Amino acid sequence: MTDLRFGPRLMARLDQLGRISSDSDRLTRLPFTPAHRQALEQVRAWMHEAGMITRVDVIGNLIGRYEGDDPDAPALLIGSHIDSVVAAGRYDGPLGILSGIDAVHALHQQGDRLPFPIDVVAFCDEEGVRFTTTFLGSRAICGTLDPAVFEVRDRDGTSLADALRAFGGDPDRLGEAAYSQGSIRGFLEVHIEQGPVLEAEDRAVGIVTAIQGQSRMVVCLDGMAGHAGTVPMGHRRDALAGAAEMILFVERRCAAVPELVGTVGRIDAQPGAVNVIPGRVLFTVDLRAPNDLIRGQAASEVVQGIQRIAASRGLACSIGREHDQRAMACAPRLQRWLAQALRAEGLPVKYLASGAGHDAMAMAECCPAAMLFVRCKSGISHNPLESITVEDADVAVRVLLRVLRDLIPPEASS
Amino acid sequence: MTDLRFGPRLMARLDQLGRISSDSDRLTRLPFTPAHRQALEQVRAWMHEAGMITRVDVIGNLIGRYEGDDPDAPALLIGSHIDSVVAAGRYDGPLGILSGIDAVHALHQQGDRLPFPIDVVAFCDEEGVRFTTTFLGSRAICGTLDPAVFEVRDRDGTSLADALRAFGGDPDRLGEAAYSQGSIRGFLEVHIEQGPVLEAEDRAVGIVTAIQGQSRMVVCLDGMAGHAGTVPMGHRRDALAGAAEMILFVERRCAAVPELVGTVGRIDAQPGAVNVIPGRVLFTVDLRAPNDLIRGQAASEVVQGIQRIAASRGLACSIGREHDQRAMACAPRLQRWLAQALRAEGLPVKYLASGAGHDAMAMAECCPAAMLFVRCKSGISHNPLESITVEDADVAVRVLLRVLRDLIPPEASS
Repeated sequence: MTDLRFGPRLMARLDQLGRISSDSDRLTRLPFTPAHRQALEQVRAWMHEAGMITRVDVIGNLIGRYEGDDPDAPALLIGSHIDSVVAAGRYDGPLGILSGIDAVHALHQQGDRLPFPIDVVAFCDEEGVRFTTTFLGSRAICGTLDPAVFEVRDRDGTSLADALRAFGGDPDRLGEAAYSQGSIRGFLEVHIEQGPVLEAEDRAVGIVTAIQGQSRMVVCLDGMAGHAGTVPMGHRRDALAGAAEMILFVERRCAAVPELVGTVGRIDAQPGAVNVIPGRVLFTVDLRAPNDLIRGQAASEVVQGIQRIAASRGLACSIGREHDQRAMACAPRLQRWLAQALRAEGLPVKYLASGAGHDAMAMAECCPAAMLFVRCKSGISHNPLESITVEDADVAVRVLLRVLRDLIPPEASS
Repeated sequence: MTDLRFGPRLMARLDQLGRISSDSDRLTRLPFTPAHRQALEQVRAWMHEAGMITRVDVIGNLIGRYEGDDPDAPALLIGSHIDSVVAAGRYDGPLGILSGIDAVHALHQQGDRLPFPIDVVAFCDEEGVRFTTTFLGSRAICGTLDPAVFEVRDRDGTSLADALRAFGGDPDRLGEAAYSQGSIRGFLEVHIEQGPVLEAEDRAVGIVTAIQGQSRMVVCLDGMAGHAGTVPMGHRRDALAGAAEMILFVERRCAAVPELVGTVGRIDAQPGAVNVIPGRVLFTVDLRAPNDLIRGQAASEVVQGIQRIAASRGLACSIGREHDQRAMACAPRLQRWLAQALRAEGLPVKYLASGAGHDAMAMAECCPAAMLFVRCKSGISHNPLESITVEDADVAVRVLLRVLRDLIPPEASS
């Protein structure tokens, strides 16, 4: 193993940032709180040290600019979010900000300046825990944030508009946060995987091909409730037994396609007594794939399968399609840069899809976007047990630095 | 179709009794209430009309005696319960009391007197809705009621002892309710089936072979909760998918044996969010069969099947055996009398097991007991929609009368 040039300091800073919390005993950093402010000041100091000039935009994003030879050339953006869930881990978000700062710091220390500016961004709100809306920061930069969101209130009744004003932002000047068209060369986000794939395949990092699209359904089955003792098996219309067959159908159908996942996460059987045959069952289905065709095909086969099972069991069945979200493909050119960087660092190239949403998803609306996933222990996230290794943190910065220094052509990337 | 000698009046009386309720808009007749008292007075009047002398015993059972040639010969008991559930049907219980009175009435009208007395009993409490304990009346008559039960309180805080005293009973003289050993020739109970078997096979009545035994389990599965998007199918330990496979195993195993039934009535999946793989699932299993060997075999195979499925899916599994109750076989001799009576009435003989508990179950502790089930519409009971036909009601009384008049030998039946 080579000496770790970046890992130890990066891990120490992630620990340090992870202690900036609204709660004394765990990491909770909701947007537009004193903890958010304190975290921004800490990150701002590290940006300055890395040779950047900083600003906080009207939505509360902290942006550190490392100037390029041509200040008017489209900028490369690197970053992730600084907010967290309640009782969070310390890597989800901050890893993408601090690894970007470290890569810029390395350029700065060697006096390297690129033909174009680099903006490292600490997005104000991705998790959406306080205001139940996500991607506030990245949407504002893309110019896709609906101003109606400012009316949303948190649990204490404070509107997003008021919270933002108290933080020093200005909802009435939202447009000023947006980068002008063509002024972003691309967006790179380093993030923990939040899944078990890289760990299982023994890879430090992987290149994200796409953020999965999603279909959600709610299935309602009506059979016939009855006495658990008096109704022979052949006379039953047991809604829960029907649901069980459907759950296994979803599992089998999704396991047959490597990129597809399907989950029944919620189930409710009524009346729900030990001695009564369930007459009604509600359950949810969540289907995801990085390819909308694969997901669409799976969704229609799941619907057909559920209807067929319901019919064969004499169950009435209604299926509500709650939510359909298209997949976001990562930019092929940025994926190629990342792959070249991995090879140049002597690392195997692993591609994988993201099952969770990320700022890169919102950024893809206005520029080419890509992500580098870092292996995390047991796939655990949104949990104080979230964990990465110093070696993998080091790899992330090396790959990012390699992309910046060697791979991005001076002309615009599109 | 022959003229209906008994059906119309019996149905009218069942309607009339069904209007005696604590609730104005539905039938609710809990024990030791004014509605219970009013129902007893009505039934007592019909007993007198049928030539019986009546008494209410210390536990609140109403007993009408139709004297025999030998007043000291062991009595034949006929009856069922006069209490109901909340929002009850009008047949569950009263059918067994009023059909007995009608059969005796027919004897009385023709001046027939049997060698032994007949006691028609309106048991005070079988449903156990008010005090959560069942078979109060039949257990007291058998001498098997635990006096500790008198301490139990209803939702208003009234103890059973106090409620019984206010009703005119006496918990301190419980023993006086018990019939002396050998003084009961047998017990016959007419009851609605509360299941769909007779209706499906187009039979008015059926002879109960046994009241099913029961095994109850609670299964707890622990897998690994995870993000519905980030964990590939092959990496999952989904507790709900495991439970689904187990539910179908229970269904398949029980469907393979005609007399066996198995129900998963309650399920709870945690954390229960649409986008989270369930990490923990709890569900119940209720197995019943009229044969304890069949049930025991099924229970141990279900346990093995659940453990095997859990192991194959990497789920931790604990199975709690909550409750095991042996089956109660109906007395073969009484079943034979009923079968002879059916044949004599020109009816096909249909045997079936009871999935629910009945007073006959408690009576079997002290005498030979048997039951005649009457077809009920769609198997619905414990519901205002509970329904039987006037023709089937007529059949029940004719069968009972046939047993009384022609089939019971004068000597004791054991």
